[in-house]
Amino acid sequence: MPTQLEMALDTMLRIFHQYSCKEGDRFKLSKGELKMLLQELTDFLSLQKVPQIDKIMLDLDANKDNKVDFNEFVIMVAALTVACNHYFVEQLKKK
Amino acid sequence: MPTQLEMALDTMLRIFHQYSCKEGDRFKLSKGELKMLLQELTDFLSLQKVPQIDKIMLDLDANKDNKVDFNEFVIMVAALTVACNHYFVEQLKKK
Repeated sequence: MPTQLEMALDTMLRIFHQYSCKEGDRFKLSKGELKMLLQELTDFLSLQKVPQIDKIMLDLDANKDNKVDFNEFVIMVAALTVACNHYFVEQLKKK
Repeated sequence: MPTQLEMALDTMLRIFHQYSCKEGDRFKLSKGELKMLLQELTDFLSLQKVPQIDKIMLDLDANKDNKVDFNEFVIMVAALTVACNHYFVEQLKKK
């Protein structure tokens, strides 16, 4: 029986592939697919100052192939989670 | 209402803090806390050749303070998820 943490990682995998297989390269996100996927992070992104999709794409697309592969996606998720952790810890410290 | 992906990221935050607050620095994992947390990843880790806890600690503890902070934890989770994605994609390509 997978643990909560394992189900969380599995969700990251599933959501990425749910969007990456919609068009073009099945294992990479096009700009359009990335834009759709980002709607899955509306609440989290609302805590940040979110740049335009082009800037996000530019930041994520480390190998400059105009697509976001899973490694690049995970770095975005990690950065977003770190930013939220920082926000979460600041709230805790105020208590 | 948070999406599945947001709940997954929230789980990562919660599980980290669930263990990091057990002893010492409330916002960092000691080796003991890391060892307990890794039990939450038994299935995922079973797909890999997992080194001893000391080696994992050595790899994760980027700033050499003998503890694993959230940033270091997220890098481990990202690396583990990338490894599992690689495994997942290989299985898909065999079909």
